Amino acid sequence: MKKFWRVVTSMVLVVAAVGVTVFQFNRPSEEIMEAVAAVTETTKVKAPKYVFLFIGDGMSYPQIQIASDYLGVKADTDNDDILDGNEALNFMNFETAGSAITYDSSSFCPDSASTATSISTGHKTYSGVINMNETKNEEYETIAEQLKEQLNYKIGIISSVNLNHATPAAFYGHQASRNNYYELGLEMIESNFDYFAGGALKKADGEKGNLYELAKEAGYNVVTTRAGANALTEKSGKTIVIAQDLADSDSINYELDRKSYEWSLADYVEKGIEVLDNETGFFMMVEGGKIDWACHANDAGSTIADTVALAKAVDKAIEFYKEHKDETLILVTGDHETGGLTIGFAGTNYDTFLTNLENQKISYAKYDSSYVSKYKEQKTSFDTVLKDIKRLFGLMTSEDAKAESNPNLVLTEYELGLLKNAYNKTLGNKAEKMSEQEEYVLYGTYEPLTVTITHILNNKSGINFSSYSHTGLPVAVLAQGEGSDLFEGYYDNTDIYNKLASLLGVQQSGIKNQ
Amino acid sequence: MKKFWRVVTSMVLVVAAVGVTVFQFNRPSEEIMEAVAAVTETTKVKAPKYVFLFIGDGMSYPQIQIASDYLGVKADTDNDDILDGNEALNFMNFETAGSAITYDSSSFCPDSASTATSISTGHKTYSGVINMNETKNEEYETIAEQLKEQLNYKIGIISSVNLNHATPAAFYGHQASRNNYYELGLEMIESNFDYFAGGALKKADGEKGNLYELAKEAGYNVVTTRAGANALTEKSGKTIVIAQDLADSDSINYELDRKSYEWSLADYVEKGIEVLDNETGFFMMVEGGKIDWACHANDAGSTIADTVALAKAVDKAIEFYKEHKDETLILVTGDHETGGLTIGFAGTNYDTFLTNLENQKISYAKYDSSYVSKYKEQKTSFDTVLKDIKRLFGLMTSEDAKAESNPNLVLTEYELGLLKNAYNKTLGNKAEKMSEQEEYVLYGTYEPLTVTITHILNNKSGINFSSYSHTGLPVAVLAQGEGSDLFEGYYDNTDIYNKLASLLGVQQSGIKNQ
Repeated sequence: MKKFWRVVTSMVLVVAAVGVTVFQFNRPSEEIMEAVAAVTETTKVKAPKYVFLFIGDGMSYPQIQIASDYLGVKADTDNDDILDGNEALNFMNFETAGSAITYDSSSFCPDSASTATSISTGHKTYSGVINMNETKNEEYETIAEQLKEQLNYKIGIISSVNLNHATPAAFYGHQASRNNYYELGLEMIESNFDYFAGGALKKADGEKGNLYELAKEAGYNVVTTRAGANALTEKSGKTIVIAQDLADSDSINYELDRKSYEWSLADYVEKGIEVLDNETGFFMMVEGGKIDWACHANDAGSTIADTVALAKAVDKAIEFYKEHKDETLILVTGDHETGGLTIGFAGTNYDTFLTNLENQKISYAKYDSSYVSKYKEQKTSFDTVLKDIKRLFGLMTSEDAKAESNPNLVLTEYELGLLKNAYNKTLGNKAEKMSEQEEYVLYGTYEPLTVTITHILNNKSGINFSSYSHTGLPVAVLAQGEGSDLFEGYYDNTDIYNKLASLLGVQQSGIKNQ
Repeated sequence: MKKFWRVVTSMVLVVAAVGVTVFQFNRPSEEIMEAVAAVTETTKVKAPKYVFLFIGDGMSYPQIQIASDYLGVKADTDNDDILDGNEALNFMNFETAGSAITYDSSSFCPDSASTATSISTGHKTYSGVINMNETKNEEYETIAEQLKEQLNYKIGIISSVNLNHATPAAFYGHQASRNNYYELGLEMIESNFDYFAGGALKKADGEKGNLYELAKEAGYNVVTTRAGANALTEKSGKTIVIAQDLADSDSINYELDRKSYEWSLADYVEKGIEVLDNETGFFMMVEGGKIDWACHANDAGSTIADTVALAKAVDKAIEFYKEHKDETLILVTGDHETGGLTIGFAGTNYDTFLTNLENQKISYAKYDSSYVSKYKEQKTSFDTVLKDIKRLFGLMTSEDAKAESNPNLVLTEYELGLLKNAYNKTLGNKAEKMSEQEEYVLYGTYEPLTVTITHILNNKSGINFSSYSHTGLPVAVLAQGEGSDLFEGYYDNTDIYNKLASLLGVQQSGIKNQ
């Protein structure tokens, strides 16, 4: 039955795709239509065996374009007055570049649970809900579950953040709240998926026992060292890899903070391909989860570095695609935009100064944990803090600038005032009085000092954020390989699932457990 | 020779387009490839005879999506808790939706002269330059000139702003500075194009005489009344239509201010089709120029209304397309994004309240000219001004709110403070001291009072702008009809010209006057 459906669906698809394309390009000359009909009648089309779905959390056009622009100015060293422009990220050159609309049942500024539900199951739901309907009495089957059950594909789920965080969880979990981390962990184990890799599980302990222990009992290798991860092969069986080097909230490090020996997202993808590769097929979801976190915190430097890290992970898929061109589909998309990131800023008019970001040596999160926490403990003086700010972010006072031959990023009096005030807020000193509304717009829920540093550095680089939350911008859907042209157009994010499911020929029964 | 090139180019194109699509979708089964080859060898492909190019100035994904979201919430009247989402603008449903990168030789935040040059000629140049190279010693031929000269297409240029403003001028002019309005006007007359319609010419007088007089001498009908425009037919000969009802800077009115008897952009397009329609073909460029102006001023209400007005103009092209499906191509794009418009705002977190914008009854520009000018003259009291603000923008004080049964848009103390300060700045009263940098970020070059009103209304609607200038976001390229699939992908804006020129089979000699 399954095979029958696959063949039928595939045949309908090739007629539709080839037919429509020819029709669009040209008058539907009778010869072309007849030829296509003749060909499709006699040709069996197979769905791609290997599917990569990369999701940059919080990544839409601004994040993609600014990373590409940053690489462009770094490469533009000819010293003439003509801007050479951007340097495309690999996936910007994919055959197809559609757009997906991201609103959910709650808002035009949706969350990662609902948007991943749309991508994974083709359904809209409320923010915060994972693969359940709005009344929370029905569970939706995910594309990963369908591929596992119906087609026996191996499944890999990789994330730079916790493996039971909303985006990865939306490929195996079904919960009324994304905060049911323990329950999501249980579902992760029940999924029987083949390869999980990334940040540690949140809330690993609960009434049924420790999630890692339960995973081992269920037959999973639980690997928590680089050496262990290195040793994995296609014969290792089902595996959960937790990064040896964990950073904020037990995620893998921001690319800006990652030491060379630590595994990058690309390393987890490369190993995943090795573990999952098989004759039947595999589906691999890879989340660049910290693009979102960096954008929430309005940290442009970390946003760019983590977007480039995602592109490097995509490189591994492209290498595989080159060896299996007619059997592989690579999709790169985002779930929503975060932060209202703008290439441009009111204060810098029509200019950007992106190379200023080279001065940022550390993510906002690492600065918080390694520096700001000590400032609070030790009541560090503002002057000492300014020295750290100069070293780690390049921002300097006009006094410091005098000692420099080519001073750059000199703080204006206004900016120094903003910093001083934020420093006082962070250290709990007496600070300028302001309304709650004004304070939230200035700092969100972040360390006033840290977010003011990144705001000033962003602005001096010609960049601005307009929110600490998700926004309603559509996301890009970049596609390469088998079936990629299905993903062109400006459509709803639920159609990412619909197109994938049709292409792969899975039965879209939809509701689970009925 | 011309015809030969057209046929060769077209044949190469159909092989490429059909071949690549089939190849992408599927393994290049020998049968399909052979069938396509056989078909393309025996089929002559003709370029689309009718080409519409709509350019929303300053219109990128945020402007398109927010207009669509606004229509969605207005239509969502079922009173349940589930957001029904956006209502697609017609061009969002086009077959192809690519993205174009907009940087120019000066900046990642380019201007309308350089970006229109890229679209019109396939060349990058400095901001402010129209169809000339960076050293300003070579002129580039435009797609409109090539279609007129090489293929005898009729040409129409329509804009809601001045007909010698940067975007329309980039289809007929070649000037080192976009500010050479008089020279651009002379080139407009020399172009011999068939239909110009929109806002009045800037700097109509110069050393060779009045531009309108010169146009008449050159054989143009110069029509300046609705009755005159109404009377035009396909037999009228070459014509310049200047809107009878002119608004700010001699443009046509913002849609928000337009009276029902005034011609909309759609009316000029409808008349343009009537005038230009002929057996050989036509090319019509239509600019929605005031989307950009509204975004510069951070006026979200006017942005949305003018984006919807552009879609209504596109409707006229779609009607024509339906009658000439296999001979028509419609492109809808932007030249760059303006304002860093965000669907979302730090102060409203994950929420938007787009229906609040219904309270805005007037554009920022009309408010400036009809109200603020009087406030300045008459030193109108703040209390009186607040009454106008309530009536025209819906924002009310907490005192006013007491009298309302269902108060909405109540100003917080903080917001009232911002308004009071802006009012004082606008009226030249003593106002809170602030740095130049802070003042520019708050007001740009706009009337402090007006821009503060739109900022507060935007923010209360869950919208924010992060700049008064252009930004580096890529723009959407939506395409429908003959050749539309050529426009898929994420490419440079110069490729809009390259794709068009290949499709239409014009010779791309490039340099003019050599």
